[in-house]
Amino acid sequence: MSQATQNTQIKLIARPQGAPTAELFQVEHSTIPQAGDGQILVKQSHMSLDPAMLGWMSDDRESYIPPVELGDVMRSSGYAEVIESQHPDFAVGDKVTGMFGWQEYALSNGQGINKVDPNLSAEMVLSVLALPGLTATQGLLRIGQPKSGETLVVTGAAGSVGSIVGQLAKAEGLRVIGVVGSEDKADWIVNTLGFDAAINYKTDNLAQQLAELTPEGIDLFFENTGGPIQQHIYQRMNAHGRIVVCGMIADYTAATPAPGPNWMNIIRKRLTIQGFTMPDHFHEVPQLLELLVPYVQKGQIQYRSHTLKGLTSAVGGLNLLFTGGNQGKLIVEL
Amino acid sequence: MSQATQNTQIKLIARPQGAPTAELFQVEHSTIPQAGDGQILVKQSHMSLDPAMLGWMSDDRESYIPPVELGDVMRSSGYAEVIESQHPDFAVGDKVTGMFGWQEYALSNGQGINKVDPNLSAEMVLSVLALPGLTATQGLLRIGQPKSGETLVVTGAAGSVGSIVGQLAKAEGLRVIGVVGSEDKADWIVNTLGFDAAINYKTDNLAQQLAELTPEGIDLFFENTGGPIQQHIYQRMNAHGRIVVCGMIADYTAATPAPGPNWMNIIRKRLTIQGFTMPDHFHEVPQLLELLVPYVQKGQIQYRSHTLKGLTSAVGGLNLLFTGGNQGKLIVEL
Repeated sequence: MSQATQNTQIKLIARPQGAPTAELFQVEHSTIPQAGDGQILVKQSHMSLDPAMLGWMSDDRESYIPPVELGDVMRSSGYAEVIESQHPDFAVGDKVTGMFGWQEYALSNGQGINKVDPNLSAEMVLSVLALPGLTATQGLLRIGQPKSGETLVVTGAAGSVGSIVGQLAKAEGLRVIGVVGSEDKADWIVNTLGFDAAINYKTDNLAQQLAELTPEGIDLFFENTGGPIQQHIYQRMNAHGRIVVCGMIADYTAATPAPGPNWMNIIRKRLTIQGFTMPDHFHEVPQLLELLVPYVQKGQIQYRSHTLKGLTSAVGGLNLLFTGGNQGKLIVEL
Repeated sequence: MSQATQNTQIKLIARPQGAPTAELFQVEHSTIPQAGDGQILVKQSHMSLDPAMLGWMSDDRESYIPPVELGDVMRSSGYAEVIESQHPDFAVGDKVTGMFGWQEYALSNGQGINKVDPNLSAEMVLSVLALPGLTATQGLLRIGQPKSGETLVVTGAAGSVGSIVGQLAKAEGLRVIGVVGSEDKADWIVNTLGFDAAINYKTDNLAQQLAELTPEGIDLFFENTGGPIQQHIYQRMNAHGRIVVCGMIADYTAATPAPGPNWMNIIRKRLTIQGFTMPDHFHEVPQLLELLVPYVQKGQIQYRSHTLKGLTSAVGGLNLLFTGGNQGKLIVEL
């Protein structure tokens, strides 16, 4: 069987206990399928690695979407080209995004598949116009309701979502403080993205730095990480502050989740704390893009991607999201 | 000086450390003032004792309204009759509510004073149509957005606010579980007010009882108390659940506030947690009454008041709110 007729897939074969390891996955080879009636066959060139994926691997009945079944191809979003089409809406050569999973070739009935501008790079699409940008748009613009002159603190600020959240907030006229885990990331968000300041949660005196950098308190807190800094940010919330809870990556692999802050401040400050997940909003992608694209067109959203090579690099790559070892949006180039 | 010309006032002279004690207050006698131009003089017959009062006694710069200054008459709401008027909007004999404080006679320029139907008893006014009912209306109906068929859990369910929250929710067609601290209160909310069930947080197996009583999970959580049951209720919240944070009386006197729940569920369940305090909504009292009064007119809101006699009984009475020793809305009859 020649290379060109063979599909490579990575399947989930065990549930994670803590951080994901190579033992959870199995590489399999099979014949490339053919598009049937109403189907398309795509060749995936880039896969996105996202923090939400650990949740999809866990057999948590409380989760917001069903887990990946053991023995199924690992779920992920990606960028692909249509190479066969028996579907009226898609033509061979179309560039598309969708939940193609950890495999080189994928069949689809077209549901949840979005055609994208072929002039945009795969990196741009996956880093900004796909999940990261849509998440930032829903969380910051729709839930957070940012107002010019307010102060925003965003955790995971150099991450795929956090970096866009901060840039959208800057474009809206907010003071933006980003929390990151390395000096390189601090440098990037301040000197390239234009955040007002960065706090390195690993080295800085969190309470003191936060007090110095938010002299007028915090109106908006966009939470991507959890961890000890959550309490410090929470304590500095202003009256009528909003907290958007998007991610808690510090707790995804914790055996015992850390306690949250006492609720007294929710009353005293009349706070609103709201969580969201994107599957609730997938049907609103066009409206979200309508909000997001103008910022992109004005050049207000920069990104950097961290590209790994080869399908099997995804297994180790997933771990970078938990160690913070990635620098930019994690993408696997096939 | 005869009884009729003397005013008695109770002033706050020290800040509380933990639960309020008699040493924080001083009784003073003075001449009854006279209404000047644009003023009214009222004779107060009933004062309301409310959990929020401990917050008003504390010198907490983070609080939502300024504290009572040391040496000032203790702040409280009450029911009174106008006995002198130099104000165009008020006539002698009018029955009014307002923040008259711990004193028999009070002067006012009319601001924040509401005239009430003289056919309603002072107990009805203070128990339902004043702070308790307005708070329940703002928190449950406006913030909580209850929907028929949903399940509500309310803590402090036999309290002045909680008892109205539960009755409004029953009128709206919700399943209502109340958390209380005594068998008498459990009996009252179920057999008199019509709640579906009660949980006694002091004696019951909270997690097990809650699971049995909310087989379809919890859509709405109205929090008046804090305490260990908060975690159990939080864990059973359904997707898109709402948590309205109105009071945390278990923490008002705690030296170290108890930690809150981890925020993972806020994401998983896409929860909204919102705090509120009534001073933000005092300008909306007419709109709130418009929502509340129809339930009262239909006989859907019952109350019981726990009346103490004499101005000085207020000092000890305040403590009943923290021990749960009161049975119904705490009122001091002068």
